[in-house]
Amino acid sequence: MSRFAERTGPIRLGMVGGGAGAMIGGVHRVAARLDGAFQLVAGALSSTEEKARASAAQVGLPEDRTYTDYVEMAKREARLKDGIEAVSIVVPNHMHLPVAREFLKRGIHVICDKPLTGTLSDARKMQAAAEKSEALFILTHNYTGYPLVREAQARVAAGELGDLRLVQVEYAQDWLAEEPEPDNKQASWRTDPARSGAGGATGDIGTHAWNLMRFVTGLVPESLAADLQSFVPGRELDDNAHVMLRFDGGARGTLWCSQVAAGEENGLKLRVYGTKAGLEWRQENPNELRVTPLGGATQIITRASAGTSEASRRLTRIPPGHPEGFFEAFANIYGEAARAIIAARSGQPVPEGVHFPSIAEGVEGVAFVDACVRSSRRNSAWVPV
Amino acid sequence: MSRFAERTGPIRLGMVGGGAGAMIGGVHRVAARLDGAFQLVAGALSSTEEKARASAAQVGLPEDRTYTDYVEMAKREARLKDGIEAVSIVVPNHMHLPVAREFLKRGIHVICDKPLTGTLSDARKMQAAAEKSEALFILTHNYTGYPLVREAQARVAAGELGDLRLVQVEYAQDWLAEEPEPDNKQASWRTDPARSGAGGATGDIGTHAWNLMRFVTGLVPESLAADLQSFVPGRELDDNAHVMLRFDGGARGTLWCSQVAAGEENGLKLRVYGTKAGLEWRQENPNELRVTPLGGATQIITRASAGTSEASRRLTRIPPGHPEGFFEAFANIYGEAARAIIAARSGQPVPEGVHFPSIAEGVEGVAFVDACVRSSRRNSAWVPV
Amino acid sequence: MSRFAERTGPIRLGMVGGGAGAMIGGVHRVAARLDGAFQLVAGALSSTEEKARASAAQVGLPEDRTYTDYVEMAKREARLKDGIEAVSIVVPNHMHLPVAREFLKRGIHVICDKPLTGTLSDARKMQAAAEKSEALFILTHNYTGYPLVREAQARVAAGELGDLRLVQVEYAQDWLAEEPEPDNKQASWRTDPARSGAGGATGDIGTHAWNLMRFVTGLVPESLAADLQSFVPGRELDDNAHVMLRFDGGARGTLWCSQVAAGEENGLKLRVYGTKAGLEWRQENPNELRVTPLGGATQIITRASAGTSEASRRLTRIPPGHPEGFFEAFANIYGEAARAIIAARSGQPVPEGVHFPSIAEGVEGVAFVDACVRSSRRNSAWVPV
Amino acid sequence: MSRFAERTGPIRLGMVGGGAGAMIGGVHRVAARLDGAFQLVAGALSSTEEKARASAAQVGLPEDRTYTDYVEMAKREARLKDGIEAVSIVVPNHMHLPVAREFLKRGIHVICDKPLTGTLSDARKMQAAAEKSEALFILTHNYTGYPLVREAQARVAAGELGDLRLVQVEYAQDWLAEEPEPDNKQASWRTDPARSGAGGATGDIGTHAWNLMRFVTGLVPESLAADLQSFVPGRELDDNAHVMLRFDGGARGTLWCSQVAAGEENGLKLRVYGTKAGLEWRQENPNELRVTPLGGATQIITRASAGTSEASRRLTRIPPGHPEGFFEAFANIYGEAARAIIAARSGQPVPEGVHFPSIAEGVEGVAFVDACVRSSRRNSAWVPV
Repeated sequence: MSRFAERTGPIRLGMVGGGAGAMIGGVHRVAARLDGAFQLVAGALSSTEEKARASAAQVGLPEDRTYTDYVEMAKREARLKDGIEAVSIVVPNHMHLPVAREFLKRGIHVICDKPLTGTLSDARKMQAAAEKSEALFILTHNYTGYPLVREAQARVAAGELGDLRLVQVEYAQDWLAEEPEPDNKQASWRTDPARSGAGGATGDIGTHAWNLMRFVTGLVPESLAADLQSFVPGRELDDNAHVMLRFDGGARGTLWCSQVAAGEENGLKLRVYGTKAGLEWRQENPNELRVTPLGGATQIITRASAGTSEASRRLTRIPPGHPEGFFEAFANIYGEAARAIIAARSGQPVPEGVHFPSIAEGVEGVAFVDACVRSSRRNSAWVPV
Repeated sequence: MSRFAERTGPIRLGMVGGGAGAMIGGVHRVAARLDGAFQLVAGALSSTEEKARASAAQVGLPEDRTYTDYVEMAKREARLKDGIEAVSIVVPNHMHLPVAREFLKRGIHVICDKPLTGTLSDARKMQAAAEKSEALFILTHNYTGYPLVREAQARVAAGELGDLRLVQVEYAQDWLAEEPEPDNKQASWRTDPARSGAGGATGDIGTHAWNLMRFVTGLVPESLAADLQSFVPGRELDDNAHVMLRFDGGARGTLWCSQVAAGEENGLKLRVYGTKAGLEWRQENPNELRVTPLGGATQIITRASAGTSEASRRLTRIPPGHPEGFFEAFANIYGEAARAIIAARSGQPVPEGVHFPSIAEGVEGVAFVDACVRSSRRNSAWVPV
Repeated sequence: MSRFAERTGPIRLGMVGGGAGAMIGGVHRVAARLDGAFQLVAGALSSTEEKARASAAQVGLPEDRTYTDYVEMAKREARLKDGIEAVSIVVPNHMHLPVAREFLKRGIHVICDKPLTGTLSDARKMQAAAEKSEALFILTHNYTGYPLVREAQARVAAGELGDLRLVQVEYAQDWLAEEPEPDNKQASWRTDPARSGAGGATGDIGTHAWNLMRFVTGLVPESLAADLQSFVPGRELDDNAHVMLRFDGGARGTLWCSQVAAGEENGLKLRVYGTKAGLEWRQENPNELRVTPLGGATQIITRASAGTSEASRRLTRIPPGHPEGFFEAFANIYGEAARAIIAARSGQPVPEGVHFPSIAEGVEGVAFVDACVRSSRRNSAWVPV
Repeated sequence: MSRFAERTGPIRLGMVGGGAGAMIGGVHRVAARLDGAFQLVAGALSSTEEKARASAAQVGLPEDRTYTDYVEMAKREARLKDGIEAVSIVVPNHMHLPVAREFLKRGIHVICDKPLTGTLSDARKMQAAAEKSEALFILTHNYTGYPLVREAQARVAAGELGDLRLVQVEYAQDWLAEEPEPDNKQASWRTDPARSGAGGATGDIGTHAWNLMRFVTGLVPESLAADLQSFVPGRELDDNAHVMLRFDGGARGTLWCSQVAAGEENGLKLRVYGTKAGLEWRQENPNELRVTPLGGATQIITRASAGTSEASRRLTRIPPGHPEGFFEAFANIYGEAARAIIAARSGQPVPEGVHFPSIAEGVEGVAFVDACVRSSRRNSAWVPV
């Protein structure tokens, strides 16, 4: 029987990381709040006491649920009658494992930012910890929360594209095109191998592109050949990666991720081509999905419009023409998590149709980074994934 | 001294209307919740007892703050020590006045859906009630909450377009292109003169287009000539309107609103042309604003990007390339309301830079509908606005 | 029997107007040449001798077929054994009638630039002259030469849009947003009532928009209400017009044309909405036509693509994805003219399926301008068209 | 002294290939005709006598200048007083060398379709022949004829993008996504190694992408790693290629070409990223070039608009907003050829500013195909280019 069997109403949520100056912590908070399924009640938003208190006050946490030490937080919350049922982990990559472990072993559900960990060895430890725990593990590869990404997945799965031949996925940004200011907190840890892990752009955004491609196509990668580069002088981690892909069954593809592509803001884009049709989805205008049957006219499928599938419509809140964006998609991952967590209260499995990226996708993402690094070191030799 | 002088933390919010089957009530709830500034604590979501209870439970209201009668709600909440500080009114147009009056007279801030009222006479009564009250009146012409609408306004105000010559604004939908199903609650009251008021499309969406145009340009309309039409057989209110506009100072324009334009989802679009430059903004892709200097290249200004003004950046939550949408814009109106309400606690006026559509814009919107109807009855004669 | 019954091969073509500094003359020459159906052999490119000779040399005309006087040209060419079979008239509007008359009365086919004439009275004289002549009269409302305009027309005619309800047509430019340089030949005559006629923007581009709308929809206008304006100080003719339209059968619409809309280059755009579907076509990206069935996904129909009709495919030269543009569309009007002229050699009527704007459309265009001016003078009263 | 020193007026042109059923021959004819600089006077449009005669008649060639044997044509035309001054070669790839050689050795200028030849060995022989000849050699990599491609080149050359880091170029089509009909003449030779050469998609369209990238960036490739695939069962040549690129100086890139990408028509697209700015150009909407400075707004540069460079404006015919397309770009290559040919009449070199792809680019294109094939056979090893 679940230790949260008695719980009703919104899920009490804690957060580790996400103090002042962070970006993704705030995103998680909005996402958790948007549909009213979670209530943030505790947090170790920073390991610096003063900052932890100030940040907690700012987001409205009571003092007695404000922590500086995540171990203490995990221990105490696990004992409290109204302690947190889930925790959002929004610390730099190298800290994902130690933090998550504390909560997992106490049966508290973990909602962890991506990539899963900085190293493959850590990823495997995380997987072991997650498998040993009764708690759920949700990885916020948020882009799979977009309704039209679900639509794309449903159409591919239904055979509308025929047999898949080609996948072109890319994720281009330019925010690291120059040496960032020393006080840019987000940039500093992401370009530091000790905190970010083996991958730079590959880890930070390449894993998103990989996850999106995997989710929509269902294709199983066989091997990849990567050419990684650090364009900004002195940068230790990759800030650009060109990757060629081979899939089981013969499909091919490329993945390009870059954080130095001048003029690109958050250019995640997926194109999939099969024997019967092709499709295209761009994150920067996420309310449109383009599907073109071979020999037919391109159709612009809009979010929530008449012909869309249940798989995508269940994740929309408002009629077509009223754009939903990044937060709504992120909130959809939280919504899926909430449905699984509520089912778990009564010992039920994840409800049918509910999907969120989990530990397996997390390990796979880190394995992708690892493979890129290995291939690139071997002068872009094909390496198995 | 304000009666809410002691209050701290999130603003306790009530809601009238917005029960099961409604759309806009849910939007208000998300908008209120998104930034954590409001907490919904009471509601008369329906005048039918059973439905009121069911809807209240669904949105997590406690039973003792669930009402079926808005008068009773206003009276009781005004007496409670932790009673609501503001109320969201999301009932059909003809009920805006009676509902709002109950709260206004008790000093409870009103956040009212648009159009202000169904008739101009009601609008004037509402204005009187609002002016007599200490409470704030916020009208949710939500489209002015989009950051790039603020950006457009700021650029026009700064003279970037030169002297304005032309305004082309349109709002095209198709959801009323056919006789709606009898159980379509949203459609039924909007096409009923008794509940919607004098305007059909003009009231429902024309007022949005008008408000957007007025906000961005600051132009003062002098007169209009309108041709209203009801295309769907048996429909009593307009479902399409063509309106020509003349402004003080010589600028000209047109406003088109339609709910029968097959293929249009929520096509609100504004174009403004001055002696030095023109601009264009489309609600369906709201993260882009296009500005073209006379003789220069079109610039795509993205939300939150480097060159944007403080007026727009203060209303964004996340870097460019991460799309914000309809809910975020709506939440911005709630955010502006929250800043004004919090200032009001200590008797302060609306903080500088904070903007929300208020009673004056509301009266003006209803006057626009009234002028359209009068002009159309006089075979599109020019009538003063 | 036709006086050109013996002719074979390319049509010998003359030109009046189109000397150095002109724009549209060059366009006609490219259009005539593009498909090889015409051969330019004679011309009165200017009424100034020196300029006529220089311009003729530049375009490769032999000296003995170079004229300064169009009357002399008409007389002499009509006598020559290998004289011109058709003439392109590319002079300012007020000269269309006197020039065309000389050729029409000698049985030489006339390809005349638009608008037909500067005044309605001239237009009617032109019609009389054309009807009295055996020669064909082709008016270069070139935009109906775009294949996807033909496609739009075919789909409307086939009932794909259902009963038409709304037409929104616009043609916005900015090249006259300021007082032009005195030596801008194209601007100077277009803003001069003596040479341009009663209409400014209405005549120069409004007639194009009108013709496009009429061609695609087939709707018969009943009346219009216009608000004309001259924004540039000192300008005598309209540089902006807002026009509301009522059609037989109850459809409504607006036409907007402007030459002072800062940032607009050549923004001709047509939208048509019926009970079953809507469509949109933009001249600036003419290889796409968007059609949206009510309740369905927007389809991007590309030129020459698989599902397009014979009516549009017969006017394309190359597979989809290889853009055709302004010249190709213009050349399509010349192509239609050529097919009619060749049929006329053997006394045949215009072949089935061949379409070009003719004298009737020309008169109608001038009547449109005339109605706009009359309505505007009567403070936008509805006037019959 | 040039053997054509006496010539004046349009350049007399011959054509080899391009009979009924061919596509590119017709394109060359329109391109040659569009600006009036060439006159087609002779041709061996087919090697089958009947077809040669019928095709020649159709395009208006006189019987005595109609050939079936290109050797005879070369010999006889070289002797004629008014013989051809240039020849367009539009036969399958394997025939480019033997045909061109006949004309080059007689001093007749050659305008040859791409790729230069089917094999690298032939390409080198062609280079030798061209270098030995007095005649000019023009290769119709027509995409560099687009004005905004010239604009892009000029901006890169002027340093507007800073130091280049990344090039992403792609050319995606779907017309060979299925086994073509046996009577599809264009498909049959392109998928036949004997006639097409070593490359399938790489040769047919990859060389275009390569040439475009080379022209715009000026970057010198150092090596490439390619993964070629034939998706359609039984196909001998590649129909898809993923290629990673390394340039001298450290820039990186990818080139993707495909003829099996369902839904893509003629999707040639170039993106270039430097330290200061990025740019994007898409062939399917060629009248727009997007340039985004790092940290600035994207600018949509339109063809012929105010800020464009002389390098692009000299190749446009009409004001912005009047789209030019594929034929106009192709005609620009012919126009450049004409300027060079006319200069050659008086022994002058290619005039300054005139540019057309020549023998060197041709050899390089075939070397690109050769490198792709070699790399792919060695499991995508990096090979020098």
